[in-house]
Amino acid sequence: MSGPDDALKSAQDWWKTGIIKMRPGVIEFGGYPVQDLIGRLSFPDMIWLLLRGDVPTPEQGRLLEAALVASVDHGPHAPSIAIARMAVSCGVELNTAMASAVGVLGDSHGGAGQQCMELFEMVREERAAGLGLDAAVDRGLDRYHAVHGKIVAGYGHRFHPVDPRARPLLALVEAAAADGVVSGEYVPIAWAIEAAIQRRTGKPIPMNIDGATAVIFAELGFAPPLGRGLFILSRSVGILAHAWEQSQTGRRNMGPMPKEIPFTYTGPEGRSIDDARPADPDVDP
Amino acid sequence: MSGPDDALKSAQDWWKTGIIKMRPGVIEFGGYPVQDLIGRLSFPDMIWLLLRGDVPTPEQGRLLEAALVASVDHGPHAPSIAIARMAVSCGVELNTAMASAVGVLGDSHGGAGQQCMELFEMVREERAAGLGLDAAVDRGLDRYHAVHGKIVAGYGHRFHPVDPRARPLLALVEAAAADGVVSGEYVPIAWAIEAAIQRRTGKPIPMNIDGATAVIFAELGFAPPLGRGLFILSRSVGILAHAWEQSQTGRRNMGPMPKEIPFTYTGPEGRSIDDARPADPDVDP
Amino acid sequence: MSGPDDALKSAQDWWKTGIIKMRPGVIEFGGYPVQDLIGRLSFPDMIWLLLRGDVPTPEQGRLLEAALVASVDHGPHAPSIAIARMAVSCGVELNTAMASAVGVLGDSHGGAGQQCMELFEMVREERAAGLGLDAAVDRGLDRYHAVHGKIVAGYGHRFHPVDPRARPLLALVEAAAADGVVSGEYVPIAWAIEAAIQRRTGKPIPMNIDGATAVIFAELGFAPPLGRGLFILSRSVGILAHAWEQSQTGRRNMGPMPKEIPFTYTGPEGRSIDDARPADPDVDP
Amino acid sequence: MSGPDDALKSAQDWWKTGIIKMRPGVIEFGGYPVQDLIGRLSFPDMIWLLLRGDVPTPEQGRLLEAALVASVDHGPHAPSIAIARMAVSCGVELNTAMASAVGVLGDSHGGAGQQCMELFEMVREERAAGLGLDAAVDRGLDRYHAVHGKIVAGYGHRFHPVDPRARPLLALVEAAAADGVVSGEYVPIAWAIEAAIQRRTGKPIPMNIDGATAVIFAELGFAPPLGRGLFILSRSVGILAHAWEQSQTGRRNMGPMPKEIPFTYTGPEGRSIDDARPADPDVDP
Repeated sequence: MSGPDDALKSAQDWWKTGIIKMRPGVIEFGGYPVQDLIGRLSFPDMIWLLLRGDVPTPEQGRLLEAALVASVDHGPHAPSIAIARMAVSCGVELNTAMASAVGVLGDSHGGAGQQCMELFEMVREERAAGLGLDAAVDRGLDRYHAVHGKIVAGYGHRFHPVDPRARPLLALVEAAAADGVVSGEYVPIAWAIEAAIQRRTGKPIPMNIDGATAVIFAELGFAPPLGRGLFILSRSVGILAHAWEQSQTGRRNMGPMPKEIPFTYTGPEGRSIDDARPADPDVDP
Repeated sequence: MSGPDDALKSAQDWWKTGIIKMRPGVIEFGGYPVQDLIGRLSFPDMIWLLLRGDVPTPEQGRLLEAALVASVDHGPHAPSIAIARMAVSCGVELNTAMASAVGVLGDSHGGAGQQCMELFEMVREERAAGLGLDAAVDRGLDRYHAVHGKIVAGYGHRFHPVDPRARPLLALVEAAAADGVVSGEYVPIAWAIEAAIQRRTGKPIPMNIDGATAVIFAELGFAPPLGRGLFILSRSVGILAHAWEQSQTGRRNMGPMPKEIPFTYTGPEGRSIDDARPADPDVDP
Repeated sequence: MSGPDDALKSAQDWWKTGIIKMRPGVIEFGGYPVQDLIGRLSFPDMIWLLLRGDVPTPEQGRLLEAALVASVDHGPHAPSIAIARMAVSCGVELNTAMASAVGVLGDSHGGAGQQCMELFEMVREERAAGLGLDAAVDRGLDRYHAVHGKIVAGYGHRFHPVDPRARPLLALVEAAAADGVVSGEYVPIAWAIEAAIQRRTGKPIPMNIDGATAVIFAELGFAPPLGRGLFILSRSVGILAHAWEQSQTGRRNMGPMPKEIPFTYTGPEGRSIDDARPADPDVDP
Repeated sequence: MSGPDDALKSAQDWWKTGIIKMRPGVIEFGGYPVQDLIGRLSFPDMIWLLLRGDVPTPEQGRLLEAALVASVDHGPHAPSIAIARMAVSCGVELNTAMASAVGVLGDSHGGAGQQCMELFEMVREERAAGLGLDAAVDRGLDRYHAVHGKIVAGYGHRFHPVDPRARPLLALVEAAAADGVVSGEYVPIAWAIEAAIQRRTGKPIPMNIDGATAVIFAELGFAPPLGRGLFILSRSVGILAHAWEQSQTGRRNMGPMPKEIPFTYTGPEGRSIDDARPADPDVDP
């Protein structure tokens, strides 16, 4: 760094990006002027362009769209949705409520798609290394459990015996594979995993929404962390909707349960600070 | 509250909602089974359904879509985008980076559309009370300034002399009005406000993206706070894209400028704690 | 802006601050080298120094400390605490859980102290304008209600008939006033407001924790918005503690109630998308 | 779950905690009535009580206090501080600004203390397994690098050749060990790691603030994740202070650099959507 020119160049490069170009009066995404995209690209197409740097085919865009439509909401029993509603009752604006809710879309709540995509990738690698489908799934599952523990993300549901969203999504991706829109290589992997889990556990644990969208995202070539990212874009819709509905009620400071239902206390009872701090002239003379 | 049945009923109603119905194996939005919507509704249609409780016409859905496409990103000079990128460099996952960024879409950054819709509404009320367009705009602007200060949200841009996104959006909403998709009542209001601002300030301050999307959202019947909510859904795309691009660089703890550019210190210099706390036997014996 | 030197200067000033000075090997707060403060200032003293630019007297620091100690937690029925616990169950780290929880300390949950300080200030202004205490309180309350609605922040509690934290805090500030540590002018205002509310409503609505800490913060000369800020610092302790306790349980995706308690659905039933979209060749050919 | 009583009991236990007991008029922490703690416990003592369930000795409380005092702020070059300031300029309240900033205290920004405590623990385990100090440090470092990569958290600083906060903190913990307040077992481990890093890299990489506070937290018996949690409590002070200072300036929508310094664009140039979407009758008829 030898002078102001170098420092300035360094400052400009500090924020370099390949996503957007901006000059006064000019906004381009991936080299496309924004004014040419408005009214021409669907919202999912635009999501794709920003994440991938290229425009998808209309068929790719529609497959992505189906996944985004399917995950928007799972009701107030989902922590993110409950949080959005409680946040609004605390007197914050929609942006703050949405931020608090989006923040909790972590490994267990919003990361299932990502983890499932990682599992698919492990199986695909084992396939590429020469294993047959079932053997590759077995090796993939073993590798997966070593990283992520015993729960296989994308399969099974605490609430729904069969997730009503999974089948329609799989039907769409199978149709897209038949039409050559996607390769279709992840579909048999996903079903083989379902079968392997049943073999291993002795009970049916069917694919859920996260597994089904993971198939779509993987088929469309998204990296696993974007499985989480795309889920967040989708679930943000439900988060906004519940925050908005809550804001219409005017309730203030809504806790998780009515105050008439007290929470259980499990700690020690009846202690005296005089015992713990018999004489503390420094703090309390 | 007379017994456990009442307490339980109270707990169920605590989280009541008209957005989603859920039973084991059943998910419905506004009374529509989710499996019937997948592959059939566009993502903007689904956003509409959750926020409004009904399915829009395809034409309404496409007008909403154009607004969502237009606002996705404004580059690293936008605080929300810079925050998403810095957050990732701090070692957090995408959900946390997105939460920190979404949180700052407050009154000045994400609230412009909402405020502009409030202004439109004020003008519409004055019209409904019998004033002509220009007089209604003048009264509306006076009311607006009393609440929101001197900057008129939705007009003018610090960076773009003319916002390249505004005209194409207005063209779409004008076409939709011509086709009877929307009433078109907010379009002349929006232009009359632009003219009034020029009269008042003596310089052209053209409608920007927030003004143009405010026209669309108002024409489609969204309440003003949802102008902010819809903007957040749109800008979340750019937030995700920049967070993801940043994550590929591997940089750690990226501040706002290179450390070679020191920040200016404006406070007092060279004070001694011995002067401020000559003898403090309590804390430092 | 005429050259790189100007641009650089502008970049340095962009982030100017009077709080901290930093050079390689040097960190100073308000002109005091950090190494001289460690082990010498209490944590509340340090909070004061950063917010006010000066070191408080030990007595001022201890009064601030009492307020910070009193507000740390209000259990899982407080939205912020419930959110911290749910967040952790979603698989996020402590920073993300704390962020989601801190975010909801908005006008109704964390802003009560700030609003109460604003009320005190309104009464003080009326006193300064020549009104007697009771008349000033009446005018102050009228002004307050016009801005903040009918609930007087700082008085009354949904859960505690008498807030056990209020009296001990008031006793400390009264003692501090007797010792000349603070002026004591806000103490009679706070009691007079309690009396006025009882006169107006016909029932006792005693001062709560927010009212008592508002007295302390006002007596110590903090601006009203810092009433919220200091509360956030205090409540962050409970947020962290509950997030940590929750993390020890290993529970995943904890919603607000057991799933055996279904939430009530209030929306329309049994609608068919075929009716809403009889023929939509664009989206579903 | 056989009836409403069971469901209610399940709801009460859903939120069970050992931190706080609450009944109307009663608030207890770890069995101590809150009114007995106000004015008697220091703020760090209270933090300890909530996190550990017991009251520390005054000496333990003061050692914790020193660590909390030392980490409050590192200026606007720290992402968390820059974010707090930008957030405020976007028109959000202090709670939202603090949430956005606290959220980014992730593995690289706020997790250094936690990681350093994990390293100390690895070395302590190797010691307990019979290795001498230097050999235990070598094994510990190898284990650490396998998990966390090549950077050793708690040592070295991008900005300060010597961190002015480290030595004074170590002096306090050494004095506490001499007085029997803590065991002192982590102090030699911390120094031996510094020596080992120098041996391995050939250059001095001295302990920084995160290393020094990690020694204190470990000596006081905190679990490693609480190293991050305690840092967050401390840094929240600087976050609040900078948010507050920024709010006094009235600036709106402050990006990371002046707009006169454009960000570098690295993507493709001059593409036409007509090439990417030659004919898309579905979206743009």
